[in-house]
Amino acid sequence: MSIRCRPPETDQVAGNGLLDRRSLFKAGAAIAATTGTARAEPLKIAPWMTEPGAPFTPYGQPSHFESKVARTFASLPGTTGTGSSRTPLHLLEGTITPNGLHFERAHDGIPDIDPDQHQLVIHGLVQRTLSFSLAALARYPMVSRVAFIECGGNGGTLYQPKPAPLNLQGLHGLVSCAEWTGVPLSVLLQEAGVDPRAKWVLAEGGDAASMSRSIPVSKAMDDAIVALYQNGERIRPGNGYPMRLLLPGFEGNMQVKWLRRLKLVEGPMMTKDETSKYTITMPDGKTQQFVFPIETKSVITRPSPGYQMDGAGIYEISGIAWSGYGKITAVDVSADGGKSWAAAALQEPVLSKALTRFRLPWRWDGGPAVLQSRATDDQGFVQPGREALLAERGNRTIFHYNGITSWGVAATGELTHVYA
Amino acid sequence: MSIRCRPPETDQVAGNGLLDRRSLFKAGAAIAATTGTARAEPLKIAPWMTEPGAPFTPYGQPSHFESKVARTFASLPGTTGTGSSRTPLHLLEGTITPNGLHFERAHDGIPDIDPDQHQLVIHGLVQRTLSFSLAALARYPMVSRVAFIECGGNGGTLYQPKPAPLNLQGLHGLVSCAEWTGVPLSVLLQEAGVDPRAKWVLAEGGDAASMSRSIPVSKAMDDAIVALYQNGERIRPGNGYPMRLLLPGFEGNMQVKWLRRLKLVEGPMMTKDETSKYTITMPDGKTQQFVFPIETKSVITRPSPGYQMDGAGIYEISGIAWSGYGKITAVDVSADGGKSWAAAALQEPVLSKALTRFRLPWRWDGGPAVLQSRATDDQGFVQPGREALLAERGNRTIFHYNGITSWGVAATGELTHVYA
Repeated sequence: MSIRCRPPETDQVAGNGLLDRRSLFKAGAAIAATTGTARAEPLKIAPWMTEPGAPFTPYGQPSHFESKVARTFASLPGTTGTGSSRTPLHLLEGTITPNGLHFERAHDGIPDIDPDQHQLVIHGLVQRTLSFSLAALARYPMVSRVAFIECGGNGGTLYQPKPAPLNLQGLHGLVSCAEWTGVPLSVLLQEAGVDPRAKWVLAEGGDAASMSRSIPVSKAMDDAIVALYQNGERIRPGNGYPMRLLLPGFEGNMQVKWLRRLKLVEGPMMTKDETSKYTITMPDGKTQQFVFPIETKSVITRPSPGYQMDGAGIYEISGIAWSGYGKITAVDVSADGGKSWAAAALQEPVLSKALTRFRLPWRWDGGPAVLQSRATDDQGFVQPGREALLAERGNRTIFHYNGITSWGVAATGELTHVYA
Repeated sequence: MSIRCRPPETDQVAGNGLLDRRSLFKAGAAIAATTGTARAEPLKIAPWMTEPGAPFTPYGQPSHFESKVARTFASLPGTTGTGSSRTPLHLLEGTITPNGLHFERAHDGIPDIDPDQHQLVIHGLVQRTLSFSLAALARYPMVSRVAFIECGGNGGTLYQPKPAPLNLQGLHGLVSCAEWTGVPLSVLLQEAGVDPRAKWVLAEGGDAASMSRSIPVSKAMDDAIVALYQNGERIRPGNGYPMRLLLPGFEGNMQVKWLRRLKLVEGPMMTKDETSKYTITMPDGKTQQFVFPIETKSVITRPSPGYQMDGAGIYEISGIAWSGYGKITAVDVSADGGKSWAAAALQEPVLSKALTRFRLPWRWDGGPAVLQSRATDDQGFVQPGREALLAERGNRTIFHYNGITSWGVAATGELTHVYA
């Protein structure tokens, strides 16, 4: 077999070095020549091979060498846990967010709920009020699905006139993805018997803030789940233990955590979080309320700010894309600030309303570059450029930013958040 | 909408109360009548709603109420961490195993590897020896896939003449499933240039045991991955940090952890773990070596020993199925010890060489029952009954048990492991 030190120039499919998504597999990568991987000396015996290793543990933790892979957070002054913690997307791969790193949003801290004392009540416009313990819910039919959850305020700093000097975690770390398992809400609502006058459901959390949102009955009867498990185990405290509402594709705030009651009502309840927050103030001063689905969006996770390029050569560009409307069908990547685009490879299986991993090889020439990604979904929505988004929506809101994010690559190999 | 207190008798599709897999969705579950969920009193304010909750943490942990959801393990006398830790499958749902609960197998403890010092060397019958750092591997094309890993010795106690009085974790807890991400081994082997004489690859771990196995080049060039990430984050120490070999569908022992070198060779190296262990001694005393794929298998996870039935009524039967040959196409469930069978619902998406969740509603009449599950895969393999498996293979081995597992349900509502 012959080794090619670099893929032929004809593999370039867009400006500034973007390569065909299949070229590295065909060429056998051809990265070794630039990364110092050739060697001849014999293998050394590492210190950890000279003595027995550590014993087993009941519940495992990451290596202590990975302590920097952590959520970041800020709480409002005088509060405990009111605010959010952000997922280190720039250090993760694949599509599943490990439970310890799933982003969190809390409005009065994370409650310590005794599952044996917790009940989910369904009442209001129903034929009979029902109260479900965890043991009762365990007997109902369950479903599992992989779904992203994104805070409606994620990416809000990109509405600002100047690019915030933050990394991916600081800019977009309020999105995560897990396999959720629970009881379809439609099954429980059928048990209670929904009055035809009921068009909305008030979902209330069992935290000290009684966080509450109004949800259309149509969504509740569609794909909503009373979720009990997150990536196989019971939901983590910061994500709603012992149960949360899962509304695939809708903004995170509606997917009420520590779920304690669902009240069937005729109209929306106009709670704090659907009036004073989680609404979009438009340039004309009018406010859009009840904007539920998360719009089509993507970001490049590697390389991104904090990653240090190690000289000219081939790198894989890797990122995530998602849409609250359905499946991602394409992600285009640019290395020249949007002048030209190449189609990235999408990791199968592509699931509806879940994170989709995309990847594309790039031959960096060592000069300045601007990396961007642009997602398209199966409902025909295309992620807008930042200027196009702001032209329509203005910058009087912090919610539902889904415009393109740009990473500037300097000749030094450093990356920064830029507008382009 | 009318409420039916129980699905009609015609929904029964197999003996002893097994119901059609769609009946609870159609009937709106109809479980409330037997679980005391009806209520009228007003909602109480729980103590955790009366004061602010806990603050955020950099890396989250399960609720302290879930401390029983833990791996169990035993080490050999005089060793640390030589043995295995088992996943509490009876307490999990869905298909993803959270990283803290993924089963582990170690032959001389879990090494504490400094990722900056670790190298993967490819040598032997190659055109050039290569040594890859983690930084170099990060520039190669990556792939993600969900895959189960099962220890070849999982379920070995079911070869014993009498049923071991263990729960699911003790019997079959050496199987787990995660989304793994890494570099296809084929890409790295192409970089090194494989000599046509090389038909096998020796994979060696960087632990104190230098755990080693021989792998056919055909598998290495097919779907093998040098895995760096497990459910999004870096692989856990007990699962091979900073890298392991992933050989989808093959027995776990071959998927060498703490991977430090791959040597291309003409024939298998006859290492300790492919001669004195991980071989199958047949009734005639001959031993089958190099039995690689995990055979088609399934177990019911809920109800299973440790679960207490709460009186006659409807319960969901939930379980997992898997095959090292490909995709699960069907799981049949019996409530009468194999006299009659009903087709369970399979949770989509069904992925090749990954755990598949199956579910089926069951109306328990309060009397004795024997629950069983039987998986079929897309290669036409059907999970055998225990007696059929032993008739062919005898009981001189502990490896590759994939026969049916039976749970006896007593009138008291207790479950035990039985042979049936």
